[in-house]
Amino acid sequence: MWGGKITSQKFILNFGDDLELLKQRILKSGHISSDNVLKVDSFLNHQLDIALLSEIGKEFYRIFANNNITKILTIEASGIAIASMAGMYFDVPVVFAKKNQSKNIDGDVFTSSVQSFTHGRKYEIMVSRKFLSHDDRVLILDDFLARGNAMLGLIDIVEQSGAELCGAGIVIEKGFQDGANLLKEKNVNLHSLAIIKSMEDGKLTFG
Amino acid sequence: MWGGKITSQKFILNFGDDLELLKQRILKSGHISSDNVLKVDSFLNHQLDIALLSEIGKEFYRIFANNNITKILTIEASGIAIASMAGMYFDVPVVFAKKNQSKNIDGDVFTSSVQSFTHGRKYEIMVSRKFLSHDDRVLILDDFLARGNAMLGLIDIVEQSGAELCGAGIVIEKGFQDGANLLKEKNVNLHSLAIIKSMEDGKLTFG
Repeated sequence: MWGGKITSQKFILNFGDDLELLKQRILKSGHISSDNVLKVDSFLNHQLDIALLSEIGKEFYRIFANNNITKILTIEASGIAIASMAGMYFDVPVVFAKKNQSKNIDGDVFTSSVQSFTHGRKYEIMVSRKFLSHDDRVLILDDFLARGNAMLGLIDIVEQSGAELCGAGIVIEKGFQDGANLLKEKNVNLHSLAIIKSMEDGKLTFG
Repeated sequence: MWGGKITSQKFILNFGDDLELLKQRILKSGHISSDNVLKVDSFLNHQLDIALLSEIGKEFYRIFANNNITKILTIEASGIAIASMAGMYFDVPVVFAKKNQSKNIDGDVFTSSVQSFTHGRKYEIMVSRKFLSHDDRVLILDDFLARGNAMLGLIDIVEQSGAELCGAGIVIEKGFQDGANLLKEKNVNLHSLAIIKSMEDGKLTFG
């Protein structure tokens, strides 16, 4: 059965965190909208290129394989596919934080408040207390890091649970916004697979 | 690179659509809440057992492998992990319908209206027109089928796009509600991996 732990790393040739395949795909299929939003909905967060996501999951495993991760934490909706693919390589459960109160969650939850600039509102995220404990070693994964608000909410939940935060993996970091600095100030072991240095006049450059 | 098409079926021993592994897991880890909701949040829709989801994806591939599927369609959030795992076996893109208007979706979308009994409200679902066309052969996947409202919304979107609906795969069907009958009346090629016949007095029986 597929999903077992991968013990050999001998075929992985990347050096550093950059995933060249991903950068090429961002340049080829991404585009910058008129309101200066990077759209990667053709492969990352609406339509999903599963083979690419599997490579992304493999890369996160290469980076964090020695951290004895016991659980991957992400946030609905666009983090789920990435975390699931990574979960196959790590062979650990994935937990996704929910954004809205639902009858499907029991009352006993960790919650945190997140300011969304994309959606222009504040929202609550929550994770059932059953699925994070002080025994866990947590890797947080998400598709984007910009101002870092969703990530700070997830970190808050990890801290509430008493689990150890071992790292944070990001697919695309907007390096010109301050999320990465906020996380580094908190000593988060942050790795981003593609860091965008600037996005001006519809032109994108990597850091 | 993993994610390629699987050509040999010789190791698959299942007969019919029932996935015994899944039923055993529902009996072991699922529970029925005081308001008669089946909770499977420890492995299917909050915490995710990725190895089990991979088996579920493989089973959907076994069932629908001969339908020349070009695209898998699901709905955020709990359908995404299942569809992504299946997407590896089918080697096709996954598209997930979004539930809320977002700045990350361009204006040109297919929309449909869905009544949610779980959440007690009506909501819009949408899929960008870029990702479904009349050339597509679509498989819809989702975690639950009860009254069938989300599924009818997804079918509506497939019909708007002119794509061919080749099948619908469900992980857990509540056989005592009328969703399956509604879909069969529409001649949908429906396969559910676990059909719950009754859920009374906290006791669950399969159909």
